[in-house]
Amino acid sequence: MEGPTVRMINQPMLPHRFEIVDTHDYRETARSITTMVVRGAGAIGGTGGYAMAQAALQARESHFHQDIADAAEVVSATRPTAQNLFYAVKRVIGAIEAQGDDIAAAREAAVAEAVDIADDDAACCEAIGVNGAPLIGAGFRLSTHCNAGWLAFVDWGSALSPMFVAHREGKRPFVFVDETKPRAQGARLTAWELLQEGIDHAVICDNATGHFMRTGQIDMVIVGSDRIAANGDVANKIGTYSSAVVAKENGIPFYVAAPTTTIDPDCPSGEDIPIEERAQDEVRCTWGWSDTGEFIRVRTTPTGSPARNPAFDVTPAEYVAAIITEKGVVEASVEGIASVARV
Amino acid sequence: MEGPTVRMINQPMLPHRFEIVDTHDYRETARSITTMVVRGAGAIGGTGGYAMAQAALQARESHFHQDIADAAEVVSATRPTAQNLFYAVKRVIGAIEAQGDDIAAAREAAVAEAVDIADDDAACCEAIGVNGAPLIGAGFRLSTHCNAGWLAFVDWGSALSPMFVAHREGKRPFVFVDETKPRAQGARLTAWELLQEGIDHAVICDNATGHFMRTGQIDMVIVGSDRIAANGDVANKIGTYSSAVVAKENGIPFYVAAPTTTIDPDCPSGEDIPIEERAQDEVRCTWGWSDTGEFIRVRTTPTGSPARNPAFDVTPAEYVAAIITEKGVVEASVEGIASVARV
Repeated sequence: MEGPTVRMINQPMLPHRFEIVDTHDYRETARSITTMVVRGAGAIGGTGGYAMAQAALQARESHFHQDIADAAEVVSATRPTAQNLFYAVKRVIGAIEAQGDDIAAAREAAVAEAVDIADDDAACCEAIGVNGAPLIGAGFRLSTHCNAGWLAFVDWGSALSPMFVAHREGKRPFVFVDETKPRAQGARLTAWELLQEGIDHAVICDNATGHFMRTGQIDMVIVGSDRIAANGDVANKIGTYSSAVVAKENGIPFYVAAPTTTIDPDCPSGEDIPIEERAQDEVRCTWGWSDTGEFIRVRTTPTGSPARNPAFDVTPAEYVAAIITEKGVVEASVEGIASVARV
Repeated sequence: MEGPTVRMINQPMLPHRFEIVDTHDYRETARSITTMVVRGAGAIGGTGGYAMAQAALQARESHFHQDIADAAEVVSATRPTAQNLFYAVKRVIGAIEAQGDDIAAAREAAVAEAVDIADDDAACCEAIGVNGAPLIGAGFRLSTHCNAGWLAFVDWGSALSPMFVAHREGKRPFVFVDETKPRAQGARLTAWELLQEGIDHAVICDNATGHFMRTGQIDMVIVGSDRIAANGDVANKIGTYSSAVVAKENGIPFYVAAPTTTIDPDCPSGEDIPIEERAQDEVRCTWGWSDTGEFIRVRTTPTGSPARNPAFDVTPAEYVAAIITEKGVVEASVEGIASVARV
């Protein structure tokens, strides 16, 4: 955030073009979450916090608390699966309410809180890397799904953070990057981050992950999460569940890396997590760069065929070897989650 | 085959354009397999047979058997996983050899044998439908992977054949169609076939199959096969293995439908089936139709990122509920396979 402006990387343009988008009011910032200019658990949380800070700057003095409540609704509605979003909105509202009727102080507190949320996220993610790296052996061949790196957070990331730390320690990890249809966030974003870090990797079709697991070419899986229930069930990008089942079948440890802000203590189990269905065209079409350098979409399905597009799935706790958090590596169980959850 | 010309549907253009490609000599026909103008177990077998018939028509009288042997090598090398291809080549060579030194008779026999292979394929596939349909209950919600319908064979198909028969019996099946990256043969071809047949369906990302299984929305899986080993292990399009593992985990029966020509009695187990790796660009790019009606590719990955692209995987027999063949539904085991294998 610079003054009243929120600045973010335009993620759909990556890896082909690095572009910064500026948003000038909270509705525009919220829209950047809906349109996925910004995506990823921590990045959405950070953006949600800044959107609420903008809302506090914009809110009319005469209807201050009403305007904040309206904004909270708009911002929270952008991604129904994103626990970090609700957490950030709640934190900024808490900071505002702590100022009572002093509106000037409330505006200032809102901005300070949003900055804190972002800084906390970066610190948490670095700690996740430090806590997770010891699990990665020298020369390990890892698998990850979708993108849970810097771009998905404010810095470092969750699933990729232990890989970044392990790489800096000289362990030379190799990463199989799932392409992650519908939006190719693995092929586009994770591959790009690993290239920047100089980590050896190969992009594979989502369909190929199981083959590399069965043939002994993957030692370990680390994925991120959008929401973790109180019993250790994990919501994450569609396809995570299948990867977890096949990993377990092959005796490959399947880790989830996430800051504790991702935990929803009010959500007893994965069954209580609503699964967002996104636009059918995400399945029917693929966006990318043409040979002539245009960013366009191509359609693969017949125009008469409908599509279903659940954006997330739930991986039951039994498939999760452990959850790597900034507070340590804990069991995916009621006890494990309770030991690190923020209340 | 019309005279010396082989005519086939240009499958990469589907579902957006229906186009017939003519090939005039065996090398051109073989190339249509390599470039995937034609793909699918039975269709490749049929095409391989016709390519050998063309080779017999073209072969020089002075070097007849040498030319046939050379052609057999070229044709067999087009797809190293395709059992039906080797079977067809062998059958045409057998028909040629049966004519001894009578070259005119050999040319005639080669063409007749190729026609027989195609007719047998269509009859087998219809029988697969009749044998498999009783397994499909009224209102069943099925899942299939890739395309194993008419387009993959000469007619009817394997995995889709029981669905076509069940639909004609009024059972109103619903089919979840995996998109099947890298080449979107589910999204393009299976969806198109189901549309032509008027069968309700939805295209889903490969990543979503597990979610629909876990949440009780899929009753049964039927897939095709490119090669079945003597112990019941099954090679099929990449992603089949993961689908089978997740189906088993959720108690969903996972069937493989294939003509017995797909069985390789000389292949003891799945470990002996070579897994073809295809071009990296199949992973990096997606082909489809732009909004302006051009058939083009778009790239999603960073240019610096390598890809891995195994085209098939092996599903061990333990995950297969049964194999639906033209001779009946048999167990995926040494005994089951032996009871129907052609020797």
